[in-house]
Amino acid sequence: MKIISVLDKGYVRLVDVMGSDLSVVNAARVSYAKESKELSERDIKLIKFLAREDHTSPFRHAFLQFEVYAPLMVARQWWKYVVGSDHTMDSWNESSRRYITEEPAFYVPRADEWRSAPENSKQGSGQPINHDDGYQFMLWLEDYINQGEELYKRALDYGICAEQARLFLPAYGMYVRWYWSTSLQGVCHFLSQRLEHDAQKEIQEYAKAVLELAKEQFPISLENLLK
Amino acid sequence: MKIISVLDKGYVRLVDVMGSDLSVVNAARVSYAKESKELSERDIKLIKFLAREDHTSPFRHAFLQFEVYAPLMVARQWWKYVVGSDHTMDSWNESSRRYITEEPAFYVPRADEWRSAPENSKQGSGQPINHDDGYQFMLWLEDYINQGEELYKRALDYGICAEQARLFLPAYGMYVRWYWSTSLQGVCHFLSQRLEHDAQKEIQEYAKAVLELAKEQFPISLENLLK
Amino acid sequence: MKIISVLDKGYVRLVDVMGSDLSVVNAARVSYAKESKELSERDIKLIKFLAREDHTSPFRHAFLQFEVYAPLMVARQWWKYVVGSDHTMDSWNESSRRYITEEPAFYVPRADEWRSAPENSKQGSGQPINHDDGYQFMLWLEDYINQGEELYKRALDYGICAEQARLFLPAYGMYVRWYWSTSLQGVCHFLSQRLEHDAQKEIQEYAKAVLELAKEQFPISLENLLK
Amino acid sequence: MKIISVLDKGYVRLVDVMGSDLSVVNAARVSYAKESKELSERDIKLIKFLAREDHTSPFRHAFLQFEVYAPLMVARQWWKYVVGSDHTMDSWNESSRRYITEEPAFYVPRADEWRSAPENSKQGSGQPINHDDGYQFMLWLEDYINQGEELYKRALDYGICAEQARLFLPAYGMYVRWYWSTSLQGVCHFLSQRLEHDAQKEIQEYAKAVLELAKEQFPISLENLLK
Repeated sequence: MKIISVLDKGYVRLVDVMGSDLSVVNAARVSYAKESKELSERDIKLIKFLAREDHTSPFRHAFLQFEVYAPLMVARQWWKYVVGSDHTMDSWNESSRRYITEEPAFYVPRADEWRSAPENSKQGSGQPINHDDGYQFMLWLEDYINQGEELYKRALDYGICAEQARLFLPAYGMYVRWYWSTSLQGVCHFLSQRLEHDAQKEIQEYAKAVLELAKEQFPISLENLLK
Repeated sequence: MKIISVLDKGYVRLVDVMGSDLSVVNAARVSYAKESKELSERDIKLIKFLAREDHTSPFRHAFLQFEVYAPLMVARQWWKYVVGSDHTMDSWNESSRRYITEEPAFYVPRADEWRSAPENSKQGSGQPINHDDGYQFMLWLEDYINQGEELYKRALDYGICAEQARLFLPAYGMYVRWYWSTSLQGVCHFLSQRLEHDAQKEIQEYAKAVLELAKEQFPISLENLLK
Repeated sequence: MKIISVLDKGYVRLVDVMGSDLSVVNAARVSYAKESKELSERDIKLIKFLAREDHTSPFRHAFLQFEVYAPLMVARQWWKYVVGSDHTMDSWNESSRRYITEEPAFYVPRADEWRSAPENSKQGSGQPINHDDGYQFMLWLEDYINQGEELYKRALDYGICAEQARLFLPAYGMYVRWYWSTSLQGVCHFLSQRLEHDAQKEIQEYAKAVLELAKEQFPISLENLLK
Repeated sequence: MKIISVLDKGYVRLVDVMGSDLSVVNAARVSYAKESKELSERDIKLIKFLAREDHTSPFRHAFLQFEVYAPLMVARQWWKYVVGSDHTMDSWNESSRRYITEEPAFYVPRADEWRSAPENSKQGSGQPINHDDGYQFMLWLEDYINQGEELYKRALDYGICAEQARLFLPAYGMYVRWYWSTSLQGVCHFLSQRLEHDAQKEIQEYAKAVLELAKEQFPISLENLLK
C-alpha cells in the first residue's frame, strides 16, 4: 500500500484496511436488516446524519493499520491521544531501544525549520527564526547528537546494558517505529486533535499524511467527521 | 463471505476481515524492521512463542467483523464478555425493539433439546429430559409466545409506544441481530470463555460457529491461542 | 450512602466515590506540580475551561460506584451506552437468571403510565393513553406475567435447567441488579445521552437519580459538563 | 497519603483510593443481593477463588490514584503496559516539556549502579560493572546532561519554541510527573509485568513502591492476584 514521507527521515505507511464507507452504513442499518452493496445518495445522507449528530458507533466497524516512523517526541504526543483520551480501540506495537537492533537515527530541523516561541500562547510555535541562526542551532544539534551517539557506543562497547546506555541519547529527536491499528473513529479523533493549529508542528505533518492515506479509503466518512 | 446456521433460526456470518497470521508476526517484529511476506517455519515458531508466553499485543492488529442473529439471552451472555471483561477492542451495533422493524422471532427448543439442571453445579445444564415431556414444554412455550405476540400487537394497534408494548414479549428467547467487530485477540478471549463446557449450551453453539469462521482466516494463531 | 427509588420497585444507590471537583483540578495542573487543597475561584474557572474546551481527560481521575436495580430493558439501554460508545472506563457486574437466586420481580406500568407512540418519530413515546385503557393493559400484563412465572416454576420443578426455564419469562420488564463503576467522565457521557427527551422514559428516570447522587459529590464539574 | 522515594529524585505517591477487599466481595455477590460489611473467612475464600479462577471483573470496582515522578524511559515502559495491553481502565495526565514549567531534572545512576549487559538475553541487565568505571560513566553522563541543559537554555533564550528546544535534552533520563488512576485489576496487571526479573531494573523499583502502597489498601486481593 501507499507510503508518505514526513520530516527528514520519517514516513507513514498504510499497512492494511478493513471496510469502506459502506461498512458504516451497514452497521447503522442493523435494525432494518438491510445491507447496501453500493454507496447510494441515501447512504451518503445517512453518513452525514451520523457524523452531524455525533452517532459515532457505526464508525467503529472499519479499521486501519499504519506503520509510522517518527521522532520520539511525536510518538509521545501520539500516545497521549491514545492513553489520555477515552478512545481505546487502539493497538500499538513499538520498537524498543532496550534491544540493540538498528543504528539510532535523529530528527534535525534544517536551517529554515527552527521556529520561534508563539506570541500569546504557552504552547505551540510562531514564525521561523532567522536562517543564519537556524543554521547555527542545526550545527549545534548535530554536534550534540554526535557526541551522544559516541558516548552511547562507548557504553555499549564497554559492556553496559542497552537499557542504561541509552541515557546518553538525546531521545526526543530519535526515530522510533511502530504499528498503530485503530478504528475509523479512532483515526478521526486523532486527526481532529492533531491537525489543529496549536498541535506541535511536527505531529501536524504526520496527521496530514494519515489524513491523505485514510481519505482514499473512506472519503465520505472523513469529509463529514472532520467538519 | 461464509455464513453458518445456529439453533432454529439463528446464524453467524463473517462480514469482513483484516490481516492474517502474518499480521501478528509483523507486529511482533517491529523492533527489527523486518516484514514477512509469506509465513515461514520461523514465523510459526514466533506465533507459538507469543501465544505460550501470553504476549498478546501483536494479536490485536488483525480484525474480524461478524453479523450475529441470536436469542436475546445469548446476546446478553456475549455482552457480558465485552463489558465485564477487560477486552475493549469491541464494536457493537444491535437492532432495537424500540423501533418496529421486523416481526419478532423466537427461539423454541425442540422436544429433544430441553435439558435438565446439572447435578453438582449452580449453573449450566445436564442431560436432555424425556422426549415426551420436552414436547409438552415446547408446546407450552409456543403457546405462551403466541399469546405474548398477540398482546404485543394489540398494544401497538391501540397506539401504545413500541418501547412499552414490548413488555409483553417473552424476550429471553427473542432473536436480535447485531454487528460485532473485534480484534483477533478479542475473538480468542470470547472463545476461551464461551466454548467452555459450563457456558450456556446455546452460546457454545454460537462460539463454535465463530471458531470455524475465524480459523479459516487465522489457522496458526487460533490453534495456539486456544491451547 | 444515599439511595433513590425509581419506577415501581427499582432504585439507584451510590455505593462509593473517589475524589471531588478538586481531583479534576489537580489532574489538569500536573504540568505545574501544584496541588489545590481547597476549591478556589481560579479552580472553578479551570473546570469551566476544561468542560467548555472538551478537555475531558482530567475528569477521568474521579470515580463513582452505583448499585442499580432496574428492568432488563433499562439495563440493555445502559449497556448499549457502555459497549457501543467509546467510553470504556466502566466496570459492570450483574445478577444472572442462570442462577436461581431471588424470585423474579417485574416492572408493571400503572394505569396512568402507559404512553402512546410519538407523532413524528420512530422512537420514544408521546402522551399518556386513556386511563381506563391503561388499566386494562396493566391487568393484561399482570396476567401475562403471572402465567409466565407459573410456567417458569413448572419447568424448574420438573427439573429443567434454569438457563432454559427462563425462556418463559417476559424478560424485558424483569428486574435485574448490577454494580456499575465508572469515572466522572463516564457518568457525564451516560447522562448526556440518557437525560435526553428522546431517550426511553424509564431510563430517563434512572438517569435523573444518577444525576442527583453524582451532583452532591461533583457539583461544579457536573454543572459544566452537562451544559 | 503515603509517599515512597524511588531512584535518585523520583517517588510514587498514593493520592486517593476507592474501596477495599470488601468491594471485590460485594461486586462478586451481586446475584445474591447480599452485602458484606466486614471481611469474613468466607469472604477471603471467595477472593482466593476469584483470583485462582481468573474471574477478574469484581476486581475492577475498586480504584487507586497515584502520582508518579520518574525518568521518561520509565514512563514509556509504563505507557506501553497501558497502550499495548488490553487493560484500559487507566487514566493518565502527564506534564509536558512543550510548556516551560519546571527546571529539567535528570536521573543519573551512581558509580555503583551501572549494570552490564546480560549474558544470555537480548534485554534486561546483568551484574554491576566495576565501581571506578561506573564513576567515569557517571561523570560523562553528568557532563553530557550539563551541555544539553546549556544548549536548551541557549535556544529558549534566543526565542526558539519550547517544543523544538527540547531536542537538545537527553530525554530518556529526564524526570516527568503524571497522575495514574486505574482499577485494582489494572494495578495487578501492571505489577505482574513490571515486577518480573526481566523488566527494566528502574521500573521494577517503581513497581515495588506501587505494590507497597496498594497492599496496605487491598492486602488479600493483592496477595492472591499476584500469586
